[in-house]
Amino acid sequence: MTSHPFYLDCDTGIDDALALAYLLASPQADVQGIGTVSGNVSAAVGARNTLDLLQLAGHAHIPVALGAHDPLAGSFGGGAPWVHGENGIGEVALSASAVGLAAETAAEMLVRLAHQHPGTLRVLAIGPLSNIAEALRLEPELPRLVEEITIMGGAALAPGNITPVAEANIANDPEAAALVLSADWDITLVPLDVTMANVLEESHRQELLASSGPVPRALGEMLGYYFRFYEGIYGRPCSAMHDPLAAALAVGAVKPALAPVVRAAVDTSSGPGRGQTVCDMRGLYAGYPEVKGARCRVVLSLEEEFAPHLVDALLDFFEDGEGTTAALASAGSAA
Amino acid sequence: MTSHPFYLDCDTGIDDALALAYLLASPQADVQGIGTVSGNVSAAVGARNTLDLLQLAGHAHIPVALGAHDPLAGSFGGGAPWVHGENGIGEVALSASAVGLAAETAAEMLVRLAHQHPGTLRVLAIGPLSNIAEALRLEPELPRLVEEITIMGGAALAPGNITPVAEANIANDPEAAALVLSADWDITLVPLDVTMANVLEESHRQELLASSGPVPRALGEMLGYYFRFYEGIYGRPCSAMHDPLAAALAVGAVKPALAPVVRAAVDTSSGPGRGQTVCDMRGLYAGYPEVKGARCRVVLSLEEEFAPHLVDALLDFFEDGEGTTAALASAGSAA
Repeated sequence: MTSHPFYLDCDTGIDDALALAYLLASPQADVQGIGTVSGNVSAAVGARNTLDLLQLAGHAHIPVALGAHDPLAGSFGGGAPWVHGENGIGEVALSASAVGLAAETAAEMLVRLAHQHPGTLRVLAIGPLSNIAEALRLEPELPRLVEEITIMGGAALAPGNITPVAEANIANDPEAAALVLSADWDITLVPLDVTMANVLEESHRQELLASSGPVPRALGEMLGYYFRFYEGIYGRPCSAMHDPLAAALAVGAVKPALAPVVRAAVDTSSGPGRGQTVCDMRGLYAGYPEVKGARCRVVLSLEEEFAPHLVDALLDFFEDGEGTTAALASAGSAA
Repeated sequence: MTSHPFYLDCDTGIDDALALAYLLASPQADVQGIGTVSGNVSAAVGARNTLDLLQLAGHAHIPVALGAHDPLAGSFGGGAPWVHGENGIGEVALSASAVGLAAETAAEMLVRLAHQHPGTLRVLAIGPLSNIAEALRLEPELPRLVEEITIMGGAALAPGNITPVAEANIANDPEAAALVLSADWDITLVPLDVTMANVLEESHRQELLASSGPVPRALGEMLGYYFRFYEGIYGRPCSAMHDPLAAALAVGAVKPALAPVVRAAVDTSSGPGRGQTVCDMRGLYAGYPEVKGARCRVVLSLEEEFAPHLVDALLDFFEDGEGTTAALASAGSAA
C-alpha cells in the first residue's frame, strides 16, 4: 500500500484530534508536518493540543508549526468553546509534551514539504484556510508542487453551521478560502453535506472508551463533550465527523458515492452570505453533467457508512499500545 | 367549498399562464384582480398576455393592472426569452383582448382589494416582488388586511436557477423581496426545492394538447417551448411547475408534506449571494423544531404528486368550453 507524504493543517479541536489520530493510524498516510491555525481554538492552543496528542500517540517526532492567529481580514473571534471546550479538546487533560514548536511557520512548513515532495505531497486542511493562503503567497508554484488538496469546509446544498449558509472553517477566513478555491489546482471539498450525514453514535464512543489504548480512550472522553453540543443539533447524543471524514477521503480509505466537480466561489461580501461556499450545484437535475473548467470536487455522499471504519481504524492501531510501536517503526523507516 | 378572494401578482410567463388558468379553474379561488410586474417579460407584455389569456378563458371581466417596470434598485434586465419566448408565452399567438388595463397601478389594486376584503384577501405573488413592496409602502397596514400571502420564489436547500444560489423572482428585485419578507406577516414561500421536484412530463402536455378546450390546448403549446428550455436542465423534455404549484398551495388544494417555518432573509449585497433567500434550515437534523419568531413557511415537499392534479383541474374546467360557461356564471354571481 502506497504511503503518501501529508501536510496537515488544523485547529485542534475535538474532531481535529480524531482526524490526527486517524491519519497516524492510516498506513496510506505519512504525516510529515502539521501546521495550526486559529479556528476552533487559537493557533497556539491548537498547537499545544497537537503536540500533546502526538506525544500520547507516540508520534512526538512529527514537527508542529504555529500558523496564522488572525484571518486575512479582521481578527480571531475566540473559537468555539461551547463546541470543543475551553481547552479545545473537551476539557480532557493530556500530559504536556516536552517537544517545542518548529522554528518555521505553518505556511513555511507547507512550502518546504511541497519542495521536498514535489508532485506527491498531499495537503489536508481541516481548519480555516489562512495558512494555505499564506503558503500560496509565499510560493505561487504551490499548486503545481502539491499532489492533492482536501479541505474540510463549506456547505453545498446543506445548511451552514455558523450562519444559515456558512460553515465555520470557511467563514472564519473567507478571504483566505476565496484565494485557495481560486488557485490553480483541483480541490476536494468535504462539506457539511457529507459530514453532517455521517454520524458517530454513543455506541461508537463507548467502543473507544473501552479500548486499552490511551489514544482511543482520550478521544472517547473528548467526544463526550462534543456529543453534548451536537445533542442540540441532532436531538440525541452523537456527533458529526467533519475532520476525520476529510482525512479518510484524503488518504483514499473512504470513497465518495456522489462527488460532482463544480465551480465554487467564496462569498467575501459583508452580506448575509458572507463565508458561504457558493457551489454551482445546478447540474443536480441532470445527474451533474461535466462542467468545463470546474475544479472543485464536492463530496456529497459516501459509498459506505464511515463511523465503523473510523472506530475500527483507531482501535486496531492504538489498542494495547500498538500505536506507539507501529509509530516508532514508521518513524524509523521514514527517517 | 369556501371561495377566497385573490389578488394575483404575475409576470406572465408560461408557468404564470398555467397558474392563472389553474386559479380560474379553482372553486376555492375568486380572482378579484391581477397586477403585473417585470420578470419573465416586461410588466407591459405580461399585462398583454394576461388580458389575452383572460379573454381566451372567458374571464375578461377580471381587471388587470400594470405594475412596476423596474425593480426598486436598477432597471429591468429584459426578461428570459430563452425560457418563455420573445412574447413570454412560448411564441403562441393569442387573440388580442379588447379589454384595456385598469386605471390603477398593480400596487394600488392590491391595496384597494385588501381594504375591500379585510382579513380575507389572499395574495399570490409569482413574479418579482416589486409591486408587493410598493403596496406595503402605500399601505403599511397591508399585512393586517391580507389573510395569506404565498410567494413563488427563492431556494432554501436547492440550487438557485439564475445564479448558483438565487432564484429569478427574488433575484430580479432583491430589495423588494427583502422588504416583503421582513414585513409583519406570515409568508408561505414556494421555493425551487419543491417546484423543481414536481415535474410536468410530455405525457401531461399531450393530455392538454388533446383537449377540446382552447385554454388547455394553448397551454400545451406554450409548454412545448418551455420544455425545450428545461430539457437542458433535466435531460428530457419536461418542466418544473413553479407558478401553478404556488397557486395550488395558495388555494389549499395541495398540501405540503414538509414545510418548516424558519427565519428567512434576502441577500441584497453585491456579492455572489445577491438575490439568495437565506433561509435558516439548520433545524433540518432535528426535524425542524419550532423557531420562535420565525414567520416564513418554506414548502419543501408535497403530500402527493402535483402534475396529475394540475392537468385534471385544467381539463375538467376548460374542456368543451365549460370554462367559459362556468366563468360567465361565476362572473354573474360575483357581480
